[in-house]
Amino acid sequence: MKFCSDCGSLLKFATPVGDDRGRFLCPACGSIHYQNPRMVAGCIPEFEGRILLCRRAIDPCYGKWTLPAGYLENGETVSACAERETREETGARVADLAPYRLFNICHINQIYFMFRGRVMDVGEGPGKESLEVMLCTEAEIPWDQIAFRVITETLQTYLRDRRAGSFPFSIGDIGPGIRQEDLRKR
Amino acid sequence: MKFCSDCGSLLKFATPVGDDRGRFLCPACGSIHYQNPRMVAGCIPEFEGRILLCRRAIDPCYGKWTLPAGYLENGETVSACAERETREETGARVADLAPYRLFNICHINQIYFMFRGRVMDVGEGPGKESLEVMLCTEAEIPWDQIAFRVITETLQTYLRDRRAGSFPFSIGDIGPGIRQEDLRKR
Repeated sequence: MKFCSDCGSLLKFATPVGDDRGRFLCPACGSIHYQNPRMVAGCIPEFEGRILLCRRAIDPCYGKWTLPAGYLENGETVSACAERETREETGARVADLAPYRLFNICHINQIYFMFRGRVMDVGEGPGKESLEVMLCTEAEIPWDQIAFRVITETLQTYLRDRRAGSFPFSIGDIGPGIRQEDLRKR
Repeated sequence: MKFCSDCGSLLKFATPVGDDRGRFLCPACGSIHYQNPRMVAGCIPEFEGRILLCRRAIDPCYGKWTLPAGYLENGETVSACAERETREETGARVADLAPYRLFNICHINQIYFMFRGRVMDVGEGPGKESLEVMLCTEAEIPWDQIAFRVITETLQTYLRDRRAGSFPFSIGDIGPGIRQEDLRKR
């Protein structure tokens, strides 16, 4: 962020009067440009004891497996976002969405909100965002090929809760850490 | 949004290739400026069966009563935000935050995330954002002086759940609707 989106002037970074942290300020028109985390909503699509995963056709993590999830749009509810992303990335239609996990991913300013959802219709396969989809049992989950740690942790909690027979809503944190693929490069 | 925050050029509004909705695009540098909902995190501060409310010293709704809540900052977890806002707006320190309600407020592109929290220390009163604070019983809640519908609904659900003896996490929607104060003006 370098220029004012309201008037086009060069911004400065300083703490506004009465605030407690630095913001991008416009010396010309006085606008303050706040920057806030973005929400990602997604889903664990369940079908007769199996989970619907999709294989990413886009970067980052091209070719890796993931749960459908994506950025919440203006004017959209979190559950509508999870349903839309599931449809776009897997082709499937889900219903009965139940809030399941929130993850703080502070180092990239993202909040993930994951639902569980019942697959009503597997559809005609994924759109352009996925290479393929797979309905998999617990034993078939490709743990070493999962795209993001937030997805690995969602799946792990889900399988543990399923064995326990209840799915309480809970919050987790994903730190910067070391990614699996960075480890493999060593 | 009128100018590119990366290069200062005049933006256009159009659907990017491969996208399904309009975005602010920069014809000069190619940047796409996505706009997404912002998260607000807040708290129901509980103290020996009473709830800590604060009276707003800032617009909108100056002079009305509310629960402490505010915008999630970059690099902050949702519970840290709720604790910070509670401290800033009531002076109180809360602990044992339990996720309680999410509200979609689509017409203003906000997602509210409300916790329940145990007041550890009432502190030395509110900072500059509140005129006063009040620890109130159910009977003392000033229902006709609550600042926002999302707060009224949070309090109503909370009191109902307290009578039932459990506080399940749930999601609600706040539509544009008619505000109490608009009704009073008629």
